[in-house]
Parts: sequence; structure tokens; C-alpha cells
Amino acid sequence: MSFTLGIDYGTNSVRALIVRCSDGAEFGVAVVDYPSGKQGVLLDPKDHHLARQNPADHLYGLEKSVRGALAQAKKKKGFDVGKVVGIGVDTTGSSPIPVDKENVPLALRARWRRNLNAQCWLWKDHTAHREAAEITRLAAEIRPQYIAKCGNTYSSEWFWSKILHCLRVDPDVFLAAHSWVELADWIPSVLAGITNPLEIRRGVCCAGHKALYADDWGGLPDREFLACLDPALADLRDRLYERAWDASHAAGALSPEWARKLGLKVGIPIAIGEMDVHYGAIGSGVAEGTVVKVIGTSSCDCAVVSAEKTVPDIPGICGIVKGAILPGHYGIEAGQSAVGDIFKWYVEGVLGDARLHGPLTKEAARLKPGQSGLLALDWNNGNRNVLVDQLLTGLLIGQTLYSTKAEIYRALIEGTAFGARAIIERIREYGVRIDRVVCAGGIAEKNPLLMQIYADVTGCTMLVAGSSQACALGAAVSAAVLAGVHPDFPAAQKCMTSLKKVSYRPKPAAQKVYGQLYALYRQLHDSFGGVNRAADLSGVMKRLLEIKDTHR
Amino acid sequence: MSFTLGIDYGTNSVRALIVRCSDGAEFGVAVVDYPSGKQGVLLDPKDHHLARQNPADHLYGLEKSVRGALAQAKKKKGFDVGKVVGIGVDTTGSSPIPVDKENVPLALRARWRRNLNAQCWLWKDHTAHREAAEITRLAAEIRPQYIAKCGNTYSSEWFWSKILHCLRVDPDVFLAAHSWVELADWIPSVLAGITNPLEIRRGVCCAGHKALYADDWGGLPDREFLACLDPALADLRDRLYERAWDASHAAGALSPEWARKLGLKVGIPIAIGEMDVHYGAIGSGVAEGTVVKVIGTSSCDCAVVSAEKTVPDIPGICGIVKGAILPGHYGIEAGQSAVGDIFKWYVEGVLGDARLHGPLTKEAARLKPGQSGLLALDWNNGNRNVLVDQLLTGLLIGQTLYSTKAEIYRALIEGTAFGARAIIERIREYGVRIDRVVCAGGIAEKNPLLMQIYADVTGCTMLVAGSSQACALGAAVSAAVLAGVHPDFPAAQKCMTSLKKVSYRPKPAAQKVYGQLYALYRQLHDSFGGVNRAADLSGVMKRLLEIKDTHR
Repeated sequence: MSFTLGIDYGTNSVRALIVRCSDGAEFGVAVVDYPSGKQGVLLDPKDHHLARQNPADHLYGLEKSVRGALAQAKKKKGFDVGKVVGIGVDTTGSSPIPVDKENVPLALRARWRRNLNAQCWLWKDHTAHREAAEITRLAAEIRPQYIAKCGNTYSSEWFWSKILHCLRVDPDVFLAAHSWVELADWIPSVLAGITNPLEIRRGVCCAGHKALYADDWGGLPDREFLACLDPALADLRDRLYERAWDASHAAGALSPEWARKLGLKVGIPIAIGEMDVHYGAIGSGVAEGTVVKVIGTSSCDCAVVSAEKTVPDIPGICGIVKGAILPGHYGIEAGQSAVGDIFKWYVEGVLGDARLHGPLTKEAARLKPGQSGLLALDWNNGNRNVLVDQLLTGLLIGQTLYSTKAEIYRALIEGTAFGARAIIERIREYGVRIDRVVCAGGIAEKNPLLMQIYADVTGCTMLVAGSSQACALGAAVSAAVLAGVHPDFPAAQKCMTSLKKVSYRPKPAAQKVYGQLYALYRQLHDSFGGVNRAADLSGVMKRLLEIKDTHR
Repeated sequence: MSFTLGIDYGTNSVRALIVRCSDGAEFGVAVVDYPSGKQGVLLDPKDHHLARQNPADHLYGLEKSVRGALAQAKKKKGFDVGKVVGIGVDTTGSSPIPVDKENVPLALRARWRRNLNAQCWLWKDHTAHREAAEITRLAAEIRPQYIAKCGNTYSSEWFWSKILHCLRVDPDVFLAAHSWVELADWIPSVLAGITNPLEIRRGVCCAGHKALYADDWGGLPDREFLACLDPALADLRDRLYERAWDASHAAGALSPEWARKLGLKVGIPIAIGEMDVHYGAIGSGVAEGTVVKVIGTSSCDCAVVSAEKTVPDIPGICGIVKGAILPGHYGIEAGQSAVGDIFKWYVEGVLGDARLHGPLTKEAARLKPGQSGLLALDWNNGNRNVLVDQLLTGLLIGQTLYSTKAEIYRALIEGTAFGARAIIERIREYGVRIDRVVCAGGIAEKNPLLMQIYADVTGCTMLVAGSSQACALGAAVSAAVLAGVHPDFPAAQKCMTSLKKVSYRPKPAAQKVYGQLYALYRQLHDSFGGVNRAADLSGVMKRLLEIKDTHR
């Protein structure tokens, strides 16, 4: 009997999970909240775009969560620390950290401790939107292939945008940084005792999806391209990496120092770090034809296609990376910039009472599709796909003097469902099979109303991942394959992952109405999103009233 | 020393006001809430479009409010019932009532008492939107002149739409009605003891603005036109009226029965009934160049132009009627279907707490124009002008995950201000002078934030009417002219009306930002309103963010 450890770095906390490799049974779990900032996020009251994280929190949480999970496991029959044969790590991304020559984050050095730019630049930091636009323009002009696989738009959330922004606004930090490392690569490197950032084995997930890395053009973007942005960026290229690795490789072996800190065996293998949703997809049973949708504050759709086939560039989908998610496959990642965050904003930010989530969900569940006459665009945090534009915002249409708060709540849920449908349709249009959707994340487990709406809107049966800790489980699966417990990922997934019994099938009557509403959503989507620059929206409000009238 | 009595029928209550003719001093006032329905409005839970009023409430309120006002006046020095020389009445409109041969509303007959269609069809009843569209289509085809002066669109709120709808959905009521009378005409006819609806002196305000009456085509729409809608409607024409009268004429003299009921002298003159805002305009000092803006649940702009000039048809403005408002002038009426109602909906309906009006106003006042990045269309109850389309709905754009409830509140206020600007601009475009704006209504008195925003958005100095009961005062002014106390309306207005000391001047910096926001408002307005059917809205959200960014 062997066990592996999956460590999952989220936006607000870190989770350690110990599972049995034979069946995925959970033997220990511990969650540690990051102590810094607001729920672990360092904010700037003057700039809503800014979101950083303290690397000290990551180290504190690493030790505390693993020790907590182990303490729990030790109480269970059959467990023994000696039986833990591997470690997998997933984190948010792109969340790059400026590090010095010793692979120590600048933020851990006294000089930089209080500097927000010296911290980990959290995935949802949007301070670099101008730099993202600049990179997009430059690539469109001289290296269109770079952005063809990420929807032809480079995001403000990604590696190069953030580093370029740092160079522009805080050159001291940029100059002090010997290298920049994604959190997903840095944690494994810490566990492996790597003290030179150039020796880190970087994962192809972050590299490919966030840093424009691809075999086709020999790795990272070339010096000439980077020099057009800034010569200093071209110089940095030499202090990053030549090659990135998929999850069939190890990031290293557990160092004596961290073996002691965590109470684990020295030398057990550490899997290549992946982004949380990618390991989450593995932990939820991703396979060709099975899309995994992780629904949380934002959402992420993961699909895979065998690397033996060819996958076309899909406009507006960011991105498609060989070796990402599942080794031997192209990994396709798409998603929405905000899902749960929109509901949270409305209920807590606008209505001002978190306790309303329950009653509003109940009331919204009594409404029929189209009954409210309301329609929302799900862009409160921009549009990640298929428009790839962080500078889009929310929209609500159809309000009368009688629109209720529950109607608005439901319209917001439906808005995110329409956004989800737009992504699924786009991926399918380009020949990628989607037979079923497995959802993971708290909302998927706790909100049957949302799940049914997603089924009705997308026309797909919605399944729910068996584990509520799919990301950490996926990391543990990866560790189990790496440690040789299972011969390959499909075999490991078969043993270690599962589905919940509940499933949500589309109801034809609701599907029909949502088809009508989706047509209106697309009109607004294409018009405000810039796809259609000669839009006739004169009928939108009336059509909503017509659909509403059928319920009277 | 003489006094007149103004009686003002609102949506939820009736108000009687006794003023001194020499200076407009208020000697007595009493407000009586209508006892029926929800705050005086009869509703149908299955149909949000429906809004009726019980004529019994009108009679109950008439006696009680006048007696209340008299009781108060009697305590004051110098007052004597014998010195009350005239009565003026204003009401909501178009609020037609089906009456029998004795001029008794069907609703007061036992057989019809519980029938919603036999009641007074309150101005804001929108059940007849299909009939309105039908009348608009027919007129556009065979009588374009009929609707040219009401913005080329006949409204669901108006006389013929409502009667035609009644004929369609409840022919029994239609057949039982010998005639239909506007509430503004019916109350004076009751006071005058008129027991035959064909003998009522109807006012040109309701006739011209709501029933397509004009001298140009010999009064009401011709039989042929009405027969195209329904032959029964053509027959009804003979049981309505041939001529309508302006406020220089009397509707009748106080009957012995009502003199006794009210405790007033028999035979004092009763002025022609006008719509509330028209007498409100007179009570606020309307004159050529001075627009009166009554801001309440909805808003109404009243302008006048000397009848010696010619006023062109103004597209989207409903309407322009000779003799309406001020005798000897064209009356121009425009307005927004909802103003206060939108704030009420948001605060009470969505946020669910009426007590938030105060704190939200305070917080919203701390925001700068454009700072929120939000923009709203003020169409929660349709657009009365300049699009004249009741089937438009609300829209809010620019939401992020950080938009606050106060930001939304302010955006809704600004949305109504942009709607107000659209109307003012349209009227000016057609050569009507607007030198100053006098506002009346509770919001004008109590909400300096809104008034300043209106000044900044429209570029007009906003003045406030001296009386908080401008409608009733205007009715009393009319009675004073009719009774011969003053030689004409300007003289009476000069003595009896005033302005408050406060005024709101546009601030250049705010004006500039609002100019930018108004351009975006017009883009949305024209696109969703059908003026521009090939709209490029791709820049709207980004432009809002740019304007917002200037505040960072």
C-alpha cells in the first residue's frame, strides 16, 4: 500500500492531501489560510487591478498544511509516513515571482519585503493590461504564430505582461530579480532544494499557456521579439529556461531540509508543477471527449486531444499547449474571468449580505427560464474567452420597475452559463470532441440550480467530480504515476478518481427558451465585444419582453 | 381678500389647497390617501402592466380633502368660506373612466364594482401596448398628421389605446359605457352637477395630448379612422365631445349638492380640468423660455410658445397642443416614464430597504462624475420621449467586481439626467427657447445631489418652484383668473407663484465629464432605441474605463 501527497495552492489558502494510490481514498487533508493581506491577497486600495501574494505565506502554508495532513493520516489504519512515495504540487497561474540568484524571492529579502512589486504577482492581477495590449500588437505584427494558440490575444494576467509592467513601473525590482519563476515551478524547486533558478525544471503548463513557450519556435519567444518590447527583457530570457517539461518528468527529489521540515522521506520524487485547474482536470478524470470544468471564483475548462492528432488554432481560446495537462496530449484551456466572483459581488458587494445566497438561490430556482426578462453579460472581470479582452465590463439589460433581486441573481447565473456555452461551442466548431462535462469546485457540488441551468443552457449533461479536492488529488495522481505506482495516467485516473452519483441532464423545454436567450446574449456579446461593429440591437429589449410574455 | 381652492389628484392621494389670491399664501391644505388597492392603485398580480383606480376613492377623497383644507383655513385670520371664489382641479392623465348615461362611472354601479376594467384606467396602465402599436401603424398609414404632434407614436398610456383594449378584452364593459371621461374632466363635471356625459366641458389638455384632438382636423379623430380600428369605436365618437376648451373657460359652476358636501358657496366657477403637471407648470411659473420640470415617480417637462408663433412638429416629443397648459399658447409636454420610480425600485425593490435612500445619497454625493465607470439607461418603465416606446427596458453597463451599491445608485440618477438632457436638446433643436428650468416635485426639493447632477448634465441652471404643491397651486391660479381676481395668467402667476432661493448652477469640470458620458449614453440610446441600426458599441465599455481611469 502506497500513498502520495498533493499540494494545492489556491488564491486564499493552501491545501495538502494524502491519498491512497490504490483507490484515491483520502487519508489526510489540511487547509491553511494565508496570513497576509485580505484573505491572502495583497491589495492596493488605489488600484483595483492589483493583486499580489506574499511568498512567505506559501512557505508557511506548505509546512503547516503538509504536517497537518500527515498528522491526520497517521491516525488512520494502514498509513505510515514511509509509504508516502511522491509529491505533486499545483498552484494558481500565471503567478510569477521575482527571485534572486539563490532562488530566493526578493520579497523574502529585507530590502524588498514591503514592496508590492517584489511579491508573487497573483494570477488575477490586471495591472499589466497596457503591456498585454503592447505584446499583442507586437506579436500580431512580427510573430503572429506566438499568439495564434492563445486566441490571438496576450493577457494581462500572464507572465510577460507582468514582468514588462514591473520593468516599467519599478525598474529597481526588475533589476534586482535574477530570474522570474512561476509559483507552480517555484514550490517544487524549493522542495527539491534547488538554489539556482536556472536549474529549476519548469513545467510546460505555465510555460506554454502563459509564457509563449513552444517547441515550434524553440522554446520561449526569441530575443529579437523581446528586445522590441524592451532590451532588458531580451537579457532576462537567458536567465529563464531553455526547455519546459510535462508531467511525465520529475521536478526533483525531496531535499533533506524539507524532508525534515515536513516529516517525509528524503529523496521521494516531486512531480512537475502544474496549474491548479490542470491537475484538477486530471483529478476529475479528464480524457479525450471529457471536458473538465472547474467552477469557482472564475471558471476553467480543460480538454485534451491526443498528441498524435493535430489541433488547429482556435480563435479566442487560450490556449492550446502540447504536453500541458496530460502528458502525450495537447492540453486545451479556456475559461471565464469571473463566475462565483460575480455572484459574490452581487450578493455581498451590492446587496451587502452574504447570508442572502441561500434564500436568493431558493427564490431564483422557482423562476422559469426567460421569465424575468433579464439578461446579463458575465464580464464583470473582463472576458477571458472567446473575446480575450480584460477591458470589458458587466452589463444587465431588461430591468423594469418590478425586477426582483432574485431575478437579477438568476440572470447573473444564466449570464455565466451563456459564457460557458460560447466557449464550448467555439471549441467544438474546431473539431474537438466534447461528449461530456465533468464539473469540479465548490459551486458544482453545492449549487444544483446553477448546474441545471448550465445543463439547460449548454445542452450538455453536467457530471460532478467525485473528489471535492480535485486539484490536490490530480497532483497526487501525477505523483503516483511518477513514483511508478501506476503505469500511466489513464490507469492512475481509473483507480484514483471518480464521479459523484448526481448528474444534471438538459431539459428540452428549458433548452428551447435558453436557445432564444442565448441568441440575444450573442448579439450583445458580439456587439460590445467588437465582433460585430454594425449591430442592430433595436430588437433586444422587445425580444426579451416577448420571451417573458410567454410565461404570463 | 379672496381665496381659491386647488384640488390635485395624484397617483396615491388627493390634495386640496386653499390659497390667498393676492400672494399665493397657503391657508389650508389636506391630503387624503385613496383607500383602495395598493396605495390607491388597483393591481393585477398576473399582469404588471395593469394599474387602475377606484372612482369611489376620488369622490371620498374630494369631500374629505376639501373639508380638511377648509377646517385648517378657518383657523387662520382673514379667511372666510364666503371668500372662496373659485375651484380648480388637476388630475393624472390620461386616466379615462367608463361612465353611463347619468355620468356615473360603471365602477360605482353594483354590477361592475369588482370589474377592473370598469374602473378608472390610471395613466400608468400599460395593458394596451398592442393597441397603441396598432393605432400608431394605422395613423402612420392613413392619418400621419394625427401622430405628427405626439412624436409619431401613440402611447399605451393614452385614451384610445385604453378604450380599444377594453373593447377587445372586456366588450361587456365597453358596451355598458355610454361615454368615457378623463378624470380631469370628470371631477369638475361632478362638482358642477353634470349628469349627462355629453354635456361635460372637456379640457383641451387631455383631449389634445391624449385623444388626438385638434382644431386642424375638426376635433377628435374622424369616424373612418376609428372604424378601421373597430366600428364600435367610431360609434363611441358620437358619445364623446365635439369641442374641447382651454383654461380660460369654466367647466361649470358649483352645484348645490356639492356646495353642501364641501361647505362652499353655490355657483362659484370651476375651472377647466387640466393634467396635474400642466397646472403644476402654471403653479411653478411656466412662461415662454421657462421650462417647468416636474420630477416625481416619473418626470414631465412643460414648455409654452405663444400661439401667435408656429411650432413645428418635434419628432419624439409628445405632444404639442394649442391651448394646453397656458391659454393663448401652444403647450409642449414631454417627459420620462420613470425617475423617482427607478430609485425606489433599486433601493426598495432590489436592495430591499427604503432606509438606504439617505445613506446611499450621501455616499453617491462623494463620487465624482465618471468615477464609477457605470452608465445606465433610464428605461425601466419604457421611454416616453424622445423614442416614445414603452417596450424598452432598463440597462446598466460597466459593472466590475468592485462596483458598489452607491455607485449604481448614482449611475441611475445620472441615467435619468441624461434622459432629461435628450429631451431638452430635442426641443431646442426645433427652435423652442429654453432659458431656464424650474423644477417642482418632492425630489427637486429634497435631493440636492440629483439637482446638481441635472445641472451638470444638462448645462442648465436648475431652479426650484417656491411651492411644494405646485399642481394644486396652479389649479388655484387658474380658478383665480377665471373668477376675475387677476386679469390674466401672467398677472396671476406673478402674484401667486414664486421660486425658492436655492439654485443649482452647472460646474464646468463636471459638465465636461458628463459630456463624454452623454455621448456614450446616446450611443446606447440610439442603438437599443432603434435610431441607429448599425451601431458600433465595441468601444463603449473601454471608453467608460478610460473616463474612470482619469480619476485614479
